[in-house]
Amino acid sequence: MSTPQDVLDAAGRAREASHALALATRAQKDRALHAMADALLAAEADLLAANAEDVARAEEGGTPLNIVDRLRLTPDRLAAMAQGLRDVAGLPDPVGEVVRGGTLANGLELRQVRVPFGVVGMIYEARPNVTADAAGICLKSGNAVLLRGSSSARSSNAAIVAVLREAAVSAGLDADVVQLVPGDSHEAVKVLMRARGLVDVLIPRGGAGLIRSVVEESTVPVIETGVGNCHVYVDRAADQDKALAIVLNAKTHRTSVCNAAESLLVHADLADAFLPRVVAALQEAGVTIHGDDVFAAYDGVVAATEADFGEEYLSLDISAAVVDDLDAAVRHIRRHSSRHSDAIVTEDQGAARRFVAEVDSAAVLVNASTRFTDGGEFGFGAEIGISTQKLHARGPMGLPEMTSTKYVVTGDGHVR
Amino acid sequence: MSTPQDVLDAAGRAREASHALALATRAQKDRALHAMADALLAAEADLLAANAEDVARAEEGGTPLNIVDRLRLTPDRLAAMAQGLRDVAGLPDPVGEVVRGGTLANGLELRQVRVPFGVVGMIYEARPNVTADAAGICLKSGNAVLLRGSSSARSSNAAIVAVLREAAVSAGLDADVVQLVPGDSHEAVKVLMRARGLVDVLIPRGGAGLIRSVVEESTVPVIETGVGNCHVYVDRAADQDKALAIVLNAKTHRTSVCNAAESLLVHADLADAFLPRVVAALQEAGVTIHGDDVFAAYDGVVAATEADFGEEYLSLDISAAVVDDLDAAVRHIRRHSSRHSDAIVTEDQGAARRFVAEVDSAAVLVNASTRFTDGGEFGFGAEIGISTQKLHARGPMGLPEMTSTKYVVTGDGHVR
Repeated sequence: MSTPQDVLDAAGRAREASHALALATRAQKDRALHAMADALLAAEADLLAANAEDVARAEEGGTPLNIVDRLRLTPDRLAAMAQGLRDVAGLPDPVGEVVRGGTLANGLELRQVRVPFGVVGMIYEARPNVTADAAGICLKSGNAVLLRGSSSARSSNAAIVAVLREAAVSAGLDADVVQLVPGDSHEAVKVLMRARGLVDVLIPRGGAGLIRSVVEESTVPVIETGVGNCHVYVDRAADQDKALAIVLNAKTHRTSVCNAAESLLVHADLADAFLPRVVAALQEAGVTIHGDDVFAAYDGVVAATEADFGEEYLSLDISAAVVDDLDAAVRHIRRHSSRHSDAIVTEDQGAARRFVAEVDSAAVLVNASTRFTDGGEFGFGAEIGISTQKLHARGPMGLPEMTSTKYVVTGDGHVR
Repeated sequence: MSTPQDVLDAAGRAREASHALALATRAQKDRALHAMADALLAAEADLLAANAEDVARAEEGGTPLNIVDRLRLTPDRLAAMAQGLRDVAGLPDPVGEVVRGGTLANGLELRQVRVPFGVVGMIYEARPNVTADAAGICLKSGNAVLLRGSSSARSSNAAIVAVLREAAVSAGLDADVVQLVPGDSHEAVKVLMRARGLVDVLIPRGGAGLIRSVVEESTVPVIETGVGNCHVYVDRAADQDKALAIVLNAKTHRTSVCNAAESLLVHADLADAFLPRVVAALQEAGVTIHGDDVFAAYDGVVAATEADFGEEYLSLDISAAVVDDLDAAVRHIRRHSSRHSDAIVTEDQGAARRFVAEVDSAAVLVNASTRFTDGGEFGFGAEIGISTQKLHARGPMGLPEMTSTKYVVTGDGHVR
């Protein structure tokens, strides 16, 4: 059993380790990332054995098959984890980047420079690959990390972190740049969430309940990630073929992700022509439509409740409504969207411009699937999550979003 | 008496007003700022009369004279408030700035664009000029603002806000872009701090107690401002004349501000030569030195307690210690600094480079007074506060720091 003091001690060790890590060169950090990748592959047998314990426990506990599958490590998945670390090594180091700079009228030189946060706390669910991903991104951005995975993956996470720590040491870094939060209790998370001053930022990644509880209980600053009730609005001036392709892709390309579409809005003027096509196409793809009165007139469409329009299904379900005009679409989205990703399909430049200006979401897309809101798709190379808050970072977060800045002011005896 | 619902209603009206304000052009916003400046001057008699009520109440209540002075409005101070609004009108509009952009491999156009937060809550103390300053900066950055000043300035703030609202309407904006938080109770602040979803960010500005309570109790994201336990470290390789000028300026130029120096560290090798000079100069300027054993050997130096080194005096007091070397200086600063502004005085390039890298503060200064950490000095034109946190903004916050961003993704039927 761990005590609250154990968690604070771990945070203190992370803080200590963060000082040297902040000064590490890109070469040192990349060496450590490659050492970690090598070590994961070398430890394959041990890691799969540890993972088998988690899988067995989950199966005994009657965990749904799709969750067990997400928990399972395979040689391929391990290889992908290792490759992920090498990919991060290949990305530019954000630390030290001069964000702006110049010389003031009085001759003072002013530079705003990227620096690591210091200590990052990650609270996440299910998949053990997040453990290596998060460790790699934090290390490259110069941050010590405290990892708190779900208890269902505790054997896997413990084994992965042990391997990563050893590899960090082999590359000349402090083992405590990567730590698991000690203990399995909710008490441990609570201590982490109140460790203001020791932990610089908390990133919860998982379901809506997890994220809400972190936001409610933390005094450490939080970056909220990921819940996505994403909309596709098919405008009066939409190209119907593009609209059909985008709706299908956004809903069915992958249903369990936060950038999948969960709600379809169609301009009233297009309803007669477009609804038969889109209802048929979605149903053929196995999608259950939870529709308003107009949609519900079609065979197989389930009548939507008000709650449906706020739902993040993460499944082959979509809510659907006909709206009178663009204004009504914007109002509907303001009311129900989680402000993750919302798309308009239109050939009308004025409508696109208004939608982009008036819809206040992390990503607003024109004639493109919501599935593009992704660090990989945006070319960031690595992504620690997708922020749905407005403070600090919004949308996919890559390495630069894992840094703060400091001002460096250089004079020659300057006084006011 | 106001009820919690009144506060939520005000926040809801701010949210509504923020939609149109986010779309307002720079021309519209600048027109409103000038209208506000004109209106403040036109209402001079009413504003001074309202302020006289606050001043009389403060005097009756036995408020210290320096606090009463900060509360007092004069025709000059009103003119400065009006000029502040005109200055903000003269600054570039941060909204719409493209932070980065490009075309992805698949032809999707990606732009990251500055957008307003939406609704900002400001909780601040004492001086009524902050009311107009904050309203102006929020308006220019496209944010509706809920202002919560101290109850000691309630008549002044009510009168100022009434004038600003009328001027906003005269310029075609919604009055509710600027509101006072209804009610004077602590309950009202609590509701504001829990209004996540209605309020996008809270900025507390005032004493350490105020800021701590907002950080502890808020579920709305907070930008922490201002507590400054700032250090000047005089290195072995310091030019003593520059060091003397910087220490004196940092401590005595203005004592009540967060970027004033509160602690002096001197390298042991320089102690014999420098301490007599700096002690004499500080004492001549009326400064009480709270020194360690070495400093306390000088006449008139008070022996420092451990607590002195954590103190933000905001007065003619300074803590002082001799340190063995640069490492010891960095350790001392890590332990005691509020991470606002810390300076080194040295002619040694290597020492300067290490200090800049290892001291993790919002501003790190080389051969310059800590008093330079200021939005005006940095050339930002306006400042809503100085952030001492690492998330979102760090150091002086100007107009760009009062915005978030969104990604705009434009395709032509793109799917994954």
